[in-house]
Amino acid sequence: MTFLLPLLIAAAVLALAYAAFNFFKVKNLEEGNETMQKIAAYIRGGANTFISIEYRILAIVVAIVAVIVFLALDWYVAVALLIGAIMSGCAGMVGMKIATYANVRVTNEANKTQNIGQTLKVAFRGGSVMGLCVGGFALLGLSVVVCVFGFGLGWISSLEPVKAWLTGIDLVRFPNVLTGYALGCSMVAMFNRVGGGIYTKAADMGADLVGKTEAHIPEDDPRNPATIADNVGDNVGDVAGLGSDLLESYVASIVAAIALGYNLIIKVGAPASSLESLYTFPLTFAAIGLVACVIGVASLLVRNLSKSKKVHNQLNGATYVGAALTMIAGAVLSAKLFGGLSAAECKALGFNFGALSPWIGAAVGIVAGILIGMLAEYYTSSDYKPTKILAEASKEGSALTITSGLALGMRSCMAPCVVLGIGIIIAYYTAGLYGVAMSAMGMLSFVALTVSVDTYGPISDNAGGIAEMSKLPEGVREITDTLDAVGNTTAAIGKGFAIGSGGLAALALMLSYMYSLPGESVGANGLPTLNIMEPMTLAGAIVGGALPFFFSGMLIDAVAVAARKMVEEVRRQFKERPAILEGKEDPDHNQCIKISTEGSISQMKTPALMAVVIPVVCGLLFGAHFVGGILIGSTIASIMIAIFTGNAGGAWDNGKKYIEQGGIPGSGKGSPVHDAAVVGDTVGDPLKDTVGPCMDIFIKIMSTVSLVAVSVFSTYNLWSVLFK
Amino acid sequence: MTFLLPLLIAAAVLALAYAAFNFFKVKNLEEGNETMQKIAAYIRGGANTFISIEYRILAIVVAIVAVIVFLALDWYVAVALLIGAIMSGCAGMVGMKIATYANVRVTNEANKTQNIGQTLKVAFRGGSVMGLCVGGFALLGLSVVVCVFGFGLGWISSLEPVKAWLTGIDLVRFPNVLTGYALGCSMVAMFNRVGGGIYTKAADMGADLVGKTEAHIPEDDPRNPATIADNVGDNVGDVAGLGSDLLESYVASIVAAIALGYNLIIKVGAPASSLESLYTFPLTFAAIGLVACVIGVASLLVRNLSKSKKVHNQLNGATYVGAALTMIAGAVLSAKLFGGLSAAECKALGFNFGALSPWIGAAVGIVAGILIGMLAEYYTSSDYKPTKILAEASKEGSALTITSGLALGMRSCMAPCVVLGIGIIIAYYTAGLYGVAMSAMGMLSFVALTVSVDTYGPISDNAGGIAEMSKLPEGVREITDTLDAVGNTTAAIGKGFAIGSGGLAALALMLSYMYSLPGESVGANGLPTLNIMEPMTLAGAIVGGALPFFFSGMLIDAVAVAARKMVEEVRRQFKERPAILEGKEDPDHNQCIKISTEGSISQMKTPALMAVVIPVVCGLLFGAHFVGGILIGSTIASIMIAIFTGNAGGAWDNGKKYIEQGGIPGSGKGSPVHDAAVVGDTVGDPLKDTVGPCMDIFIKIMSTVSLVAVSVFSTYNLWSVLFK
Repeated sequence: MTFLLPLLIAAAVLALAYAAFNFFKVKNLEEGNETMQKIAAYIRGGANTFISIEYRILAIVVAIVAVIVFLALDWYVAVALLIGAIMSGCAGMVGMKIATYANVRVTNEANKTQNIGQTLKVAFRGGSVMGLCVGGFALLGLSVVVCVFGFGLGWISSLEPVKAWLTGIDLVRFPNVLTGYALGCSMVAMFNRVGGGIYTKAADMGADLVGKTEAHIPEDDPRNPATIADNVGDNVGDVAGLGSDLLESYVASIVAAIALGYNLIIKVGAPASSLESLYTFPLTFAAIGLVACVIGVASLLVRNLSKSKKVHNQLNGATYVGAALTMIAGAVLSAKLFGGLSAAECKALGFNFGALSPWIGAAVGIVAGILIGMLAEYYTSSDYKPTKILAEASKEGSALTITSGLALGMRSCMAPCVVLGIGIIIAYYTAGLYGVAMSAMGMLSFVALTVSVDTYGPISDNAGGIAEMSKLPEGVREITDTLDAVGNTTAAIGKGFAIGSGGLAALALMLSYMYSLPGESVGANGLPTLNIMEPMTLAGAIVGGALPFFFSGMLIDAVAVAARKMVEEVRRQFKERPAILEGKEDPDHNQCIKISTEGSISQMKTPALMAVVIPVVCGLLFGAHFVGGILIGSTIASIMIAIFTGNAGGAWDNGKKYIEQGGIPGSGKGSPVHDAAVVGDTVGDPLKDTVGPCMDIFIKIMSTVSLVAVSVFSTYNLWSVLFK
Repeated sequence: MTFLLPLLIAAAVLALAYAAFNFFKVKNLEEGNETMQKIAAYIRGGANTFISIEYRILAIVVAIVAVIVFLALDWYVAVALLIGAIMSGCAGMVGMKIATYANVRVTNEANKTQNIGQTLKVAFRGGSVMGLCVGGFALLGLSVVVCVFGFGLGWISSLEPVKAWLTGIDLVRFPNVLTGYALGCSMVAMFNRVGGGIYTKAADMGADLVGKTEAHIPEDDPRNPATIADNVGDNVGDVAGLGSDLLESYVASIVAAIALGYNLIIKVGAPASSLESLYTFPLTFAAIGLVACVIGVASLLVRNLSKSKKVHNQLNGATYVGAALTMIAGAVLSAKLFGGLSAAECKALGFNFGALSPWIGAAVGIVAGILIGMLAEYYTSSDYKPTKILAEASKEGSALTITSGLALGMRSCMAPCVVLGIGIIIAYYTAGLYGVAMSAMGMLSFVALTVSVDTYGPISDNAGGIAEMSKLPEGVREITDTLDAVGNTTAAIGKGFAIGSGGLAALALMLSYMYSLPGESVGANGLPTLNIMEPMTLAGAIVGGALPFFFSGMLIDAVAVAARKMVEEVRRQFKERPAILEGKEDPDHNQCIKISTEGSISQMKTPALMAVVIPVVCGLLFGAHFVGGILIGSTIASIMIAIFTGNAGGAWDNGKKYIEQGGIPGSGKGSPVHDAAVVGDTVGDPLKDTVGPCMDIFIKIMSTVSLVAVSVFSTYNLWSVLFK
């Protein structure tokens, strides 16, 4: 324990310091010519406007929830919640800010140097700020929580009080505080994901539906008034949304692992001597992972890339450095922390391979994450058969394009789920339930690097847009396009990681949820029981299975409503001011930005609140087992929808690009085949970029809320009042 | 018990006799002019060819499975399986035959009398043959099974041997025989549903993709070579497929109720005195339901409908008569069978309302079924907001039509699942687990009427096609169109019933499955335990959740592959023989029929076998709890997919019709808005008519196979050999 807190704080500070260094390093680069500066300012302004409106609403919601939590539970949970919200909010804000500085500087670098390696470095440096902020703020907040509620209040200042808990004095406090912290992060993530997801696709679809389909002007054309809003959307959705989502997964997996560790001791009767290790391991593992990521990021940035062309290899190299360091240090850590356990103690914890078991569990998670990512690439990259076949289907028109894409997405659910299922079985066989939680942590241990790579994508995408709109030479666009294409692949892999880790984290949270039910008996194998044959649980599972579908439908509708408003506005501008299409007059970007902002803000409230409110309301009506059913049903359905939408959407997108690049002889841009593919791409947009990414935060926030509220509704609920 | 067997046999014979009467009554009507006769002969020939090829393959598969069952279990299960397959096969065959006789006679009646009431009568008489055969053959087979394996072998000849079972002698035989019977029905249903579903949509999509979209000729135009195949498809998919599917649900719900009754006595320790009642009630309830349906059918057919115009009301009237009689007689039956139970015995069975509890459980099922059907109508009928809004979305092109339809389908999952969930809770609260099984039975108790009404739809559809192809006067087509439109609504309601009852039957089978695990403990509340928190079960549930998606993807692809072949053939004929499009030459129907037949036969094998093989293979690898997880995961996912695809597809279809009928001013047939709607309809076709209807048979066959095989793989599986 003694070396824990300093390490946590040191890792967080190191990451944030390096993030600050990169922030200013990027900001101090040149912005390029006047047009570029003007466009970048538009994008930055739009993003800032959205985030400030959204954060204002978010602040109110978080405050209300904090008050409710304070009244229903206790003040310390409410405070932890606020800390979580602030940390997650900061990470999203800083990451988005730098993305809106970095985009134009990437364009300028490409224009100035004509060198892809140099340009990559600027884009990745920008992305690394988001990545390092995710890791840094998450651990900084955890340090505060541990300090204030741990040492500060003396609850965990030494093993003495822990032993006191075991005799029944203060069992719930510290895990509750951690869950409160996770809930704070979840709420910000929920709003950023949902709001950003609606924003970005409303703008994108709106721009495409009129621009490409009706006016036949290319993407990112400066004459299209919705183009700037589209670029704002990338920053709002793909940067801030993704960052706070993965921050939340990261925190949730740490919290779930700690909570499970406690439950193993308290409910299952694992040896109390292992408590400190069970509790220390996830936190320390996260800290060394973050340090490893700093080294990984630096390994790319300090090198001279000016002669390099293989962008993907560079990014992979950085990730491999971070992942390898994390795993090596993790093995040492696992051996050190659990080395003292006797064979009997290991057995009581479910460790089949002794001291290294938790580490093996984490490794299983990493392998599973990589496999799921590779499967996503297989199904969505035009290098492989499925997307090529999909592109062929466009020959028969848009209906068969859609049909085949739906079939592709549906089929693609199988393999990742088999990987997940086998991963769970192996992790459990290796290190018991703790192993399942550790496999989620494994996937997320080098999250700072994953997010850095993921954020580099939208920055490059924006850079390309700015190049197009500023009418820079073709060569610039070529460089940014290459960077962007790699970004699409990394995004597909990132999505695999996000849903895999999100699903595992949700399951680990559910386990803690079940352990937290007062009066719940634990089976002979130490497992909590959620009997799906019980009608209440079964009914919950069926309703829970429908929830993600309902939620997805609402999200798609939200995008469609906002997109249609955008379509009307763009049509209006083209009609009332024909000079715009002739390129003689500037379109009114601000009106489009306003529509996207207002549309997403007004449309996001219902779905975002739904995820928070439903488990609580259902719990108060039907009790804890019904909610348990809801959680399992919606977790399963969410995983399917996330994979289905992600892969179908990705394949449509890349199928279209494949046709544009001449994959189908005689059918380039503008051909009927391409038109059919564009319909597929447009349908896929809200699926892959709004619905899919929202799924994992949806299940995690439901699980977290349930975990926070379970002590209330397991005791007070209508059903038990009426019928028992 | 004494009055049971005669009643069962009497009901079955009565239904089959009335079916035969109606069969010949329809067949003896006139066929109309030569063109009509020729077209009808084409359709009949195509349907017969398909069914004979399919049944040949089916016979081989059933024989193989029977041998495996014989070797792994016992001969009596294998024999019961064969009986089930024969019964289900007969029902599908007879129903399809009469449909191919009735279609042209409906056209002729409309042409001759110009009277919608008279025409309705012919169509309904034709449909009633299928309905009565479903009820009749199902109960006939059950009578044989009860005779041969009950009285004949003396296992259940009196209560003495039953008491002997309770001391552990012959616990598994009779329920096993019933499950074998259900499996036989399932396998036929699986092949008919999958094969028919692929056939009908391959032909339909193929016809539409070239006919409507490229050649701009109307539906059912005689110049389109795929038209006949399309009409064959209605008979193959919507008549034979639907009939054997609902026969299977019907049998599964009866079997599940009986098996649960046994388990309540044997495993839970309910009073042995109630065994006879628990066992008699489902069988007798089914028998009186069938008699009530005969009366209901007759109530429509004996009346003079020549002045009636409100087709929907006539059909509803018949259904109400049947349902009301079933419910009244059911209440008497419930009171009589369970009236003798003491309060303590009721409590031990979970009956909260005494002797009427099982009946209330059935009533809950009926109400839930009707509500789910109404919700399906709400989401898919152009009388209501969702479909109207969807039609509006077509203004913005095909991409937004698809997007909005997907959103509609996804949103529509919520309400039916809430109904199902609440239904399960109420049924359980009323009559325990037996109540859950009874709620499935309730939905299906008047299945003969549901199927009669459902079959009347495709007959009318075919009749319209024949009218169009024979170039009969406009008035004829108007009558058949009116009948067809009502058929679409009844089909939507029927789909709600199918998935609701299928889901409940699958759950009841799962309960029996869990009870059948050797050495499984039953909780204090008498429930079997399937702990979803157990990693093996959890992994199974995740894999199980992916299975229906995978299966759906395969089905869509199967349709797309066959449809593309059809497109090529139709294009070829139009190109090589331009006289066809000028109407001067007859197209080659046979070639299209051949493509549909070969395509569906070759494409159906993998998905159909998958459902049978996967539970067994998974069980042999990972054991019974993994399979339990698979069942629950795939049941939940299947319910969602069935509702999602059914409602999205129905709404696209009706949205298109709404536009054709002038629902959107200025945008009729041939407008860009209509074109967008046609894309939606085409995408929806395989979703609503292939994927959706296959979902319930998919989960039921998996549950049935698992139930049959559980005694094998719960003892012998790789995981337990390796790690225990």
